[in-house]
Amino acid sequence: MSKTAGIIIIGNEVLSGKTQDTNSHFLCQELRSLGVEVRRILVIPDEIELIGKEAVAFSRKFDLVFTTGGVGPTHDDVTIAGIARGFGVEVIRHPDLERRLRDRHGANINEARLRMAEVPAGAELIGVESLYAPVVKLANIYILPGIPKIMRERFQVIRESFRDSPFYLKVIYMKEGEGFIASYLNRLLEHFPDLLLGSYPVLDNLEYKVKVTLESKDRVYLKRAFEELIGSLPPEAIHKVEEN
Amino acid sequence: MSKTAGIIIIGNEVLSGKTQDTNSHFLCQELRSLGVEVRRILVIPDEIELIGKEAVAFSRKFDLVFTTGGVGPTHDDVTIAGIARGFGVEVIRHPDLERRLRDRHGANINEARLRMAEVPAGAELIGVESLYAPVVKLANIYILPGIPKIMRERFQVIRESFRDSPFYLKVIYMKEGEGFIASYLNRLLEHFPDLLLGSYPVLDNLEYKVKVTLESKDRVYLKRAFEELIGSLPPEAIHKVEEN
Repeated sequence: MSKTAGIIIIGNEVLSGKTQDTNSHFLCQELRSLGVEVRRILVIPDEIELIGKEAVAFSRKFDLVFTTGGVGPTHDDVTIAGIARGFGVEVIRHPDLERRLRDRHGANINEARLRMAEVPAGAELIGVESLYAPVVKLANIYILPGIPKIMRERFQVIRESFRDSPFYLKVIYMKEGEGFIASYLNRLLEHFPDLLLGSYPVLDNLEYKVKVTLESKDRVYLKRAFEELIGSLPPEAIHKVEEN
Repeated sequence: MSKTAGIIIIGNEVLSGKTQDTNSHFLCQELRSLGVEVRRILVIPDEIELIGKEAVAFSRKFDLVFTTGGVGPTHDDVTIAGIARGFGVEVIRHPDLERRLRDRHGANINEARLRMAEVPAGAELIGVESLYAPVVKLANIYILPGIPKIMRERFQVIRESFRDSPFYLKVIYMKEGEGFIASYLNRLLEHFPDLLLGSYPVLDNLEYKVKVTLESKDRVYLKRAFEELIGSLPPEAIHKVEEN
């Protein structure tokens, strides 16, 4: 069994179409490469009750939860308040974060800037040595900022702690469409029911029509499945293969 | 009250980081421009039970539901089966869709290709005149394909049926950061509690630091809020404004 993860993207700007979320794709790629199985992505508005409810539900359902967005100094930044509400704890000003903010802003410190020191009571700080603004963690929830560049920097600091056994992947690019190859894939799954098998049609590509992906955490099982599929397909239907 | 919408993106390829979902962003932009409020985006794996459960939950919660993905001819295309399961109806082969597929494929028709004629019992077809493959609708759920180009073509055919009263938007680009402007925004919201007010910091831009968005379906209310904010901010803190 892989470790599972859920991602919650918090932000009206995504739902109203102003911003394309790229954080979830980054996290999915990173977590997959670490061997973690992302089971759910949810995008919700900047609303305290809803954030709390979903954060708690995700925390129960998945081994790891990542939130992005809603952690700045303005009125629409309510992630900390939402998660605190969901877990029934207070929002407190973390002394270490407050000290860092006062050092940084000096005489320009104000109430808005001090909101950046707020955490749900009981939260841990991670990456205190290497990050000016550490990652806030409550239970199994890692609270990340929404700005992609900053989110990525912080994730890099914590990523190794999530490493699980890897997924192995092999890819076959097919010259024939899904209607042709479906029966081959169905037969393969009868023999390899635990194989993670994906079939992704591509438009407007002159070289191939479908990308078929075979994955498993069991390298030998994957190799056997791959060899069976390659052996069963008409060779002229295969454009190329990729083995990692 | 706006019409509300929820979007369900179905596909292991998104969760495993192989594909960046762009369909939800397209739908959010389109629906916003039509005056519809998207309240939720959910990305889930290709699993029948889960698709059914979430489709039913979204159908109850939102006025409109859009799914993308999982409607091809292969083993991992289980959206139709999932939605049928959720609503407790059978999967049937729609005679009109079957006839279209037989016309298209002639002697090359096979079981896999005929899966494209499957719909949940009770579903309607929309865009029958203008689309080779019409949009399948069950209850308030519009079932769209995952390939972005095809999804967009089909959405264009149905989009006008969703039109609601428009959102009006004004944007202020600020030379000062969020820590400076937060108090101005808080004061504005005390006077205009129904204003949709967003504050989005931008990194690495030499001209401005924050994009502030003001929105409402009430054009006069928006104008008054905008004028109050512009009047209260130090003029030298404003880079530029955009009024639509």
